[in-house]
Amino acid sequence: MARIVMKFGGTSVADLDRIRAVAQRVKRQRNAGHEVAVVVSAMSGTTNRLVGWCQALSPLHDAREYDTVVATGEQVTTGLLAIALQEIGVEARSWQGWQIPIRTDNAHGKARIAAIEGAELIRRMQAGQVPVVSGFQGIAPTGRITTLGRGGSDTSAVALAAALHADRCDIYTDVDGVYTTDPRIVPKARKLAKISYEEMLELASVGAKVLQTRSVELAMNEHVRVRVLSSFQDGPDDGAVGTLVVDEDEIVEKEIVSGIAYSRDEAKVVLRRVPDRPGIAASVFGELAQRSVNVDMIVQNAAADGTTDLTFTLGKADLPRAQAALGALASQIGFAELLTDPNVAKISVVGVGMRSHAGVANTMFRALADKAINIQVISTSEIKVSVLIAAEYTELAVRALHTAYGLDAD
Amino acid sequence: MARIVMKFGGTSVADLDRIRAVAQRVKRQRNAGHEVAVVVSAMSGTTNRLVGWCQALSPLHDAREYDTVVATGEQVTTGLLAIALQEIGVEARSWQGWQIPIRTDNAHGKARIAAIEGAELIRRMQAGQVPVVSGFQGIAPTGRITTLGRGGSDTSAVALAAALHADRCDIYTDVDGVYTTDPRIVPKARKLAKISYEEMLELASVGAKVLQTRSVELAMNEHVRVRVLSSFQDGPDDGAVGTLVVDEDEIVEKEIVSGIAYSRDEAKVVLRRVPDRPGIAASVFGELAQRSVNVDMIVQNAAADGTTDLTFTLGKADLPRAQAALGALASQIGFAELLTDPNVAKISVVGVGMRSHAGVANTMFRALADKAINIQVISTSEIKVSVLIAAEYTELAVRALHTAYGLDAD
Repeated sequence: MARIVMKFGGTSVADLDRIRAVAQRVKRQRNAGHEVAVVVSAMSGTTNRLVGWCQALSPLHDAREYDTVVATGEQVTTGLLAIALQEIGVEARSWQGWQIPIRTDNAHGKARIAAIEGAELIRRMQAGQVPVVSGFQGIAPTGRITTLGRGGSDTSAVALAAALHADRCDIYTDVDGVYTTDPRIVPKARKLAKISYEEMLELASVGAKVLQTRSVELAMNEHVRVRVLSSFQDGPDDGAVGTLVVDEDEIVEKEIVSGIAYSRDEAKVVLRRVPDRPGIAASVFGELAQRSVNVDMIVQNAAADGTTDLTFTLGKADLPRAQAALGALASQIGFAELLTDPNVAKISVVGVGMRSHAGVANTMFRALADKAINIQVISTSEIKVSVLIAAEYTELAVRALHTAYGLDAD
Repeated sequence: MARIVMKFGGTSVADLDRIRAVAQRVKRQRNAGHEVAVVVSAMSGTTNRLVGWCQALSPLHDAREYDTVVATGEQVTTGLLAIALQEIGVEARSWQGWQIPIRTDNAHGKARIAAIEGAELIRRMQAGQVPVVSGFQGIAPTGRITTLGRGGSDTSAVALAAALHADRCDIYTDVDGVYTTDPRIVPKARKLAKISYEEMLELASVGAKVLQTRSVELAMNEHVRVRVLSSFQDGPDDGAVGTLVVDEDEIVEKEIVSGIAYSRDEAKVVLRRVPDRPGIAASVFGELAQRSVNVDMIVQNAAADGTTDLTFTLGKADLPRAQAALGALASQIGFAELLTDPNVAKISVVGVGMRSHAGVANTMFRALADKAINIQVISTSEIKVSVLIAAEYTELAVRALHTAYGLDAD
């Protein structure tokens, strides 16, 4: 007997038939003797429609009212799923954020969960009832409805699993697990049985959008075992399918490299011949931070002739704002040239095994060199090596690295 | 300066353009110096869609979950209207039943309002803010969302007006007031400037569906002045348009007859040759009451030969249930024949002036006799005379009576 939080996203509850299928899936877990709580998103399309209405009425609408409107999507799903569960003999009850309550801060539209009172739900689960909880929402100290921001339902599910002391948080989605890389690029990509929180975070932050980053951070901090699995595969779900996201300690056979991720969402900026004196980097990145531009990779070459080149990457969407900020700064700090290039891709190899294995980066550089792919920028973390390359080589690079690290399926 | 509750039904907030128009209407009242609270229904079509989903998942769905699903319709409208008001410079804030709170009993799907805490809303109105309140819903002692039953938004508005000590409750709808009769039948029907609660109740109960009956009862008990007016007529709204529903005392020039109403929703039942002994009526109507069949008009003829005929009317939808009940009763009490006729209409003349004027009923009988319309059943109350006739004469009877009582417009 385990206590499980099951989370179903928008496509999994897109219509009444899908909601009935979810109810059957929940019933199977109940019949297997587990205590179950369910977290649901809005039926797919609903949130976009509601957001569109708010924007049409006022581009700069009040986030408090936006939250009131948008949170109705999840509320509808909870009631419908509770009805579908009751119809097949499973005792169930819907719960909104304010009813549990799921307390958040006051940051409407992108609130963070502060606390969840789980005692009443635990009591009901122990009595055989299935709580069906609205994801993506909570209640602010002011008593108003908040939403967690797009994709927040994963975070709701993990936070609820922590509050309920659940053995596992099962995230049902439209993929059947976490792969060594994007199977659309590498048909030989393998599904991972287990992956560590840290690896999952690195993969998520570089574009493998299976789980929302915040939900993985929360799972790591609260030690919630998360399983990613498909809501579209039929058959029994005995806990062995999908991918488990867990503490590194739970992974006995650590792969040196678990996955290859890529992102085409970034742009490269080069400041040529920047004066090489203290405080220059602080002015540049301080100015960008003030305009809410997040900088990712940063490289500064060794100085020559009293000047240096400063290269960094940032989100493509932020590029116009960054150009404006740097243009204003040009006369102040004095640099020769501002070059930008949106046609770049960031390729990353991720794996906790790197910590204890040398030569991981070198394997990467060699594999790319063998394909004559030029590396523009390099950055590394404890469990990740990322390189920036021309966007046109993305698929070629991912395939070459997947093979080089021995990740191809037989 | 007055304090006004403005209520807008589903067709008045059917899409974003209509919601913008409602916002303008609210702004005009604010600009005129009034304190305003708004009550809204779901955008038209929304409630039907949500109800349909609940029924499709389970014909006998849990009313608590139905309420959770259906109440989202109003919630969306409150948020959108608050945004539309803010966009044109009117300070506004949405309020759900549980936030105010609007306390109801536990009768999910047809809850009754127990209490509304108005202090916070009054404080905000005095500070210049417009509360936008979800109609049709409240919160049960259990902490769960309740709905008041279809059309309950009128009742919400009147209850809120009472709680806020409002000077007036303006119900915006798709007609521009209360008429002396249905203008589709009598083009010369006149709009009434004022009508008493009692008359409005009698008209509502016989099919003039401008206001929900419960809302009129509540207005009468709480002395809330209600105005019915159109949300589709443009131009200034100075308080002189529409129809005021008020205490009889406020109506100086009382009409003898204020209106002619008709209903084709009833069926006639005749029990022939019922034994004329004590307790028979109690058995018949007791049995019907037990099966939740509401009986309206009842007539029992004087006995002859130890038997009598018992005639009564009931809702057409209840006829099959009534026939089953009476069939089971036939052998027990013994009557010769059970006759039913669904092709009947109830025509009613209503007016508080009747109390002090004789001959009102006689005018009715004479007018119908002149058109050779046979009267099947007669019933009277203090301010109403109703007759049952063959349904095919409905329009003819209504027109004849409208003329006979001098109600035709010039």
